[in-house]
Amino acid sequence: MLQDLNNNTICAQATASGQGAIALIRVSGPSAVDIVSKVFLPRRDRKLAEMKGYTMCYGNLMKDVGGVLDDAVVAVYRTPESYTGEDMVEISCHASTYIVSEVLRRLVDCGCRYAEPGEFTRRAFLNGKMDLAQAEAVADVISSQTEASHKIAMRQLKGGFSKELADMRERLLKIVSLLELELDFSEEDVQFADRSELKGLLGEASSHISELISSFKLGNAIKNGVPVAIVGATNTGKSTLLNALLGEDRAIVSSIAGTTRDTIEDTMNVGGVLFRFIDTAGIRRTLETVEMAGIERTYYKIKQAAVVLLVLDYTRQEDFETSINNLTTNLSGSDQQVIILVNKIDEKPVVSTTLFEGGAVAEPAAPEEDINKVCSSASALAAAAGFTPLAILPISAKKKIGLDELRTILTTSQSTVKAGSESTLVTNLRHYSALKDAYEALLRADIAIDEHRPGDLIAQDIREALYSIGTIVGEVTTDEVLGNIFRNFCIGK
Amino acid sequence: MLQDLNNNTICAQATASGQGAIALIRVSGPSAVDIVSKVFLPRRDRKLAEMKGYTMCYGNLMKDVGGVLDDAVVAVYRTPESYTGEDMVEISCHASTYIVSEVLRRLVDCGCRYAEPGEFTRRAFLNGKMDLAQAEAVADVISSQTEASHKIAMRQLKGGFSKELADMRERLLKIVSLLELELDFSEEDVQFADRSELKGLLGEASSHISELISSFKLGNAIKNGVPVAIVGATNTGKSTLLNALLGEDRAIVSSIAGTTRDTIEDTMNVGGVLFRFIDTAGIRRTLETVEMAGIERTYYKIKQAAVVLLVLDYTRQEDFETSINNLTTNLSGSDQQVIILVNKIDEKPVVSTTLFEGGAVAEPAAPEEDINKVCSSASALAAAAGFTPLAILPISAKKKIGLDELRTILTTSQSTVKAGSESTLVTNLRHYSALKDAYEALLRADIAIDEHRPGDLIAQDIREALYSIGTIVGEVTTDEVLGNIFRNFCIGK
Repeated sequence: MLQDLNNNTICAQATASGQGAIALIRVSGPSAVDIVSKVFLPRRDRKLAEMKGYTMCYGNLMKDVGGVLDDAVVAVYRTPESYTGEDMVEISCHASTYIVSEVLRRLVDCGCRYAEPGEFTRRAFLNGKMDLAQAEAVADVISSQTEASHKIAMRQLKGGFSKELADMRERLLKIVSLLELELDFSEEDVQFADRSELKGLLGEASSHISELISSFKLGNAIKNGVPVAIVGATNTGKSTLLNALLGEDRAIVSSIAGTTRDTIEDTMNVGGVLFRFIDTAGIRRTLETVEMAGIERTYYKIKQAAVVLLVLDYTRQEDFETSINNLTTNLSGSDQQVIILVNKIDEKPVVSTTLFEGGAVAEPAAPEEDINKVCSSASALAAAAGFTPLAILPISAKKKIGLDELRTILTTSQSTVKAGSESTLVTNLRHYSALKDAYEALLRADIAIDEHRPGDLIAQDIREALYSIGTIVGEVTTDEVLGNIFRNFCIGK
Repeated sequence: MLQDLNNNTICAQATASGQGAIALIRVSGPSAVDIVSKVFLPRRDRKLAEMKGYTMCYGNLMKDVGGVLDDAVVAVYRTPESYTGEDMVEISCHASTYIVSEVLRRLVDCGCRYAEPGEFTRRAFLNGKMDLAQAEAVADVISSQTEASHKIAMRQLKGGFSKELADMRERLLKIVSLLELELDFSEEDVQFADRSELKGLLGEASSHISELISSFKLGNAIKNGVPVAIVGATNTGKSTLLNALLGEDRAIVSSIAGTTRDTIEDTMNVGGVLFRFIDTAGIRRTLETVEMAGIERTYYKIKQAAVVLLVLDYTRQEDFETSINNLTTNLSGSDQQVIILVNKIDEKPVVSTTLFEGGAVAEPAAPEEDINKVCSSASALAAAAGFTPLAILPISAKKKIGLDELRTILTTSQSTVKAGSESTLVTNLRHYSALKDAYEALLRADIAIDEHRPGDLIAQDIREALYSIGTIVGEVTTDEVLGNIFRNFCIGK
C-alpha cells in the first residue's frame, strides 16, 4: 500500500470548491511535468520539461478531442524544492466545476491517480520535508479560527514542538546510554550511572512531560473551544439563548455532530476566544427511562464544562431553589465557573414578586427594581447552596437584552485562552496520549531505581518512554497510524 | 469613480472560500509588488522588487506584531503580461479563514483597496486585455455546467464572437463611408453608392444579424437551461415529481430565486443538457383572486416552456379530459413539446377503470394491461384536443418508476441543445438587445433607400446600427453599463 502510494503521480483540486474566480489543481510525482505536458499547450512554444522550478507559464488546457478547454497558468516546482519534495505542477484555471472535473479526468486518463485525503502532506512527511507533528499542524493551521489557535498550530508547523521533544529525547538517550554501558561490563557489577543523579535527570524529564500533559487542557480549549454548558429547568429558554448567541454571527459558526441526540454543540469565536456551546436537555424530575438517560448526559456535560450558564426563568421564581441546588450537586470542581442568567425579564412574573417577602401582599415594584431584587435572591440561594457565581445577569434571550454583557463576561473569564501561551501547548489527543505513556514509563523507571533493579530493566522503561515520544514526530510509525492521521485531511492537502 | 477605480492597487481572495488546502489572494495595481513586500518575507534574502514576471518565491507572511503568520508562495506578474495588464502578485497561503482575513487586512493596512466584484476583469477590459464580450464570457466560463454551455462561453472568451462582429462592422463602415463621400460632393448631387448594390450589402448584414438574434433561443437554452414546465391539476404529484427528478443528483442542482412565490425553478444537468424545471401552481377552477393570480402565472410559464410535462393522476381518470383541454388552450406554439405523464401507477384507481368502456361493469384488468389502456385513452383525448404528445409515459414519482425513461426522452428531445453549435450563439440578453436595435436601424436604412431619402439620412441609420454593435464589444460604453455588467461578477474575478 505504502509502496503503491509512493510510486504514482497524484492529482487533486487544492482550493475549495464553490463560487470563486480561480481553482488550483495540484499534480505531484515523478511524472508530474510529463503528464501535464499532455493536457497543456504553453504559449510561444515553451516546453514544460525545460522549465525551472518556481517559474510559471501561460497557455491553454486542451480537450482530448482538440480545442481549448481553458486558459491557464501552470507553475512548475522541481524536486526537492516543493511542498511534497517531488516534482510538482500547479494548474490555475477558471473555477468552473465543468472545467475542473474535465482537467482532473484528463490528468487521470494521462496517467495520474486521484489523490487520497492528505496524500500531498503524507508525501511531504515520507520525503522528510516535515515530521509527523508538523504534518498534523498543517490541518490545524487550516482549521484555526482564532489568533490563539493559529499561534499554537503555526508554532507546531514551524517545528517548535518537535524541537522541544528532540531535546527531551536527547537527555533521555544520554541516561539510557549510561545504563547500557553498564551492561557491557555487567560481569564486573559496576555502576557508571550514579543512581541519585539518574533520579534527578529522570525527574527533570518527567516534570517537563507532566507540564506538556497539563497544557492539553488549555491547548484543547484554544483549539476545540472552551466548553460552555447551558443548563436549567425545561422551558427556561435555553435553546432560544443558544440561537440568540449564535444567530448574529452564523458565518463563523460550525456545528459539531453531537454524540447524543440530546445535546447540540456549536462553536463560535466570541471576542477572540473560541467557545463550544452545549445546549442540554432540560432537567426535571422524571421516571421515564429515555428522559432519564438524557438528563444523565446533561449531568455529564455539566461536569465537562469550563463554564456553566444556569438559565433561570424570571416568570417562575418558585423554581429557582431547585434549579440552583440541582446544579450544585453536579458541579465537578472549583475551577468551573457558573454564570446565572435570569431570563425572560421582558415578561411579567406569573407568581407575585412578593414570594420572597414572606407572603405579605406588597405594592408591585417598578420593573427594574423588581429585577434587581430577583437577582439578589438568586445570589442568596447560590450562597446558601455553597457556591459563588461569576455573575448574575438579567437577560431576555428573545428580545436580545443583556447578551453583549454576557459575551463580555465570557471573553473576560477566559483571558488565558485568549492570550494563548508563549510556551508549547499540546492540542492533539494523539500527542497527549503518547506523552501520558511516556510519563508512566518514566515513573516505572523511577520506581525501579528505588527498588535497586538492574540497569537493563531501568533502561528498558526509558526506552519505552523514548518510543512513545518518537511516535509523536513520527520517528517510529506504522502505515495504520499514518492512515488514521491523514484520513482526516481534506483531499488536495 | 472610474478614475478612482483605476488608480489603486486592489486585493481579494480569488479562490472559493470554504474547506480547501490552499487559498489564492490576488493583488493588482501599480503598487502590488511594493505592498506585498511589506507583508511577505522571501526566503534566502530574495527581493520581490527584483523578481521577473512569471516567477515565484517561497517565504513567510509576517504578522504586524512580528512573527510568522503563514508559509506562502508568492507569484509575480509584470505589466502588461498579466490578467489585468497591471503588475500583479498572487499569494498562495493555507486556506484558513483566519489567515486569509489577516492577510487581506494587512494588505489593506499597507495601502491596498479591497476589490469590487469583477474589478480584476474590469481592469483587464479597461487595459485592453479583452473586449467587453470577452469579459462577459469570463463569468459564463466560470458558471458553465455543461460541455455545450462551456463551448459557447469559451468561443466568446477566445474572441470568436467579437471577430464576427468586427467583420460585420467593417462591412457596414464601408457602406457608410461611401454614403458620406457623397455628402462631400452634395452640391453636385452625385451618387457614389449604387442604391441597389447598397440594399444588397445591407440585406447581407441584416440577415447575419437576424441569424444571431435567432440563435439566442438555443444559446439561452444551453446557458440557462431548457425551460420545462411541470403542470397539472392540484394534487397530481407535480412537486413529488420535481423532487424525485432533482433529488438523486442534488449536488449539481441550483435554485433560482423564483420571481413569484408560486413557481419554483431548479436547474439540473440531465445527460449533458441543462434543464430548468419549473414547478407550477396546480390548475383548478377558483374564484379566489390570490389563487387566480397563481394560475395566471402558470399559464404564462406554460407559454414560455420548451417542454411541458403534463402530470395526470392515474387514480383520478375522470380529470384527464379537463386537464388536457386546459393545457391545449394555453400552449403557445407548435414547437413546444408535451410529454404526458400518467402518475401514481403504484396506486389503485379510485374510480372503476371501466370509465372508458361506456359504464359497463367489467372484470378488473391486470395492472399492466389497465395502465396501457389508460395511457391509450389519454392519447385519444390529446388527439381529440388537437395535439400529439411527444410521449405518454406511465410513472410513479413516489416510487421512482419510469423516471429514467423520462430523462432519456427529455435528453433525446433536446439533441440540438446537447450538440451545441459550431456557429456563434448569442447567450447574453445585453447582446441580444443590442443586436435587435442594430437590426431595426438597418431595417430603417433599407426603408429609407426605398423611399429615395438622402444619403446622409441613410448613413445616420447605419451609424446607429454600428453604435449598437459597438456596445457589445465595448467600443462605446459608459460607467453605468460597466457597473451593471461587473456587478454580477464575484469578488476576486
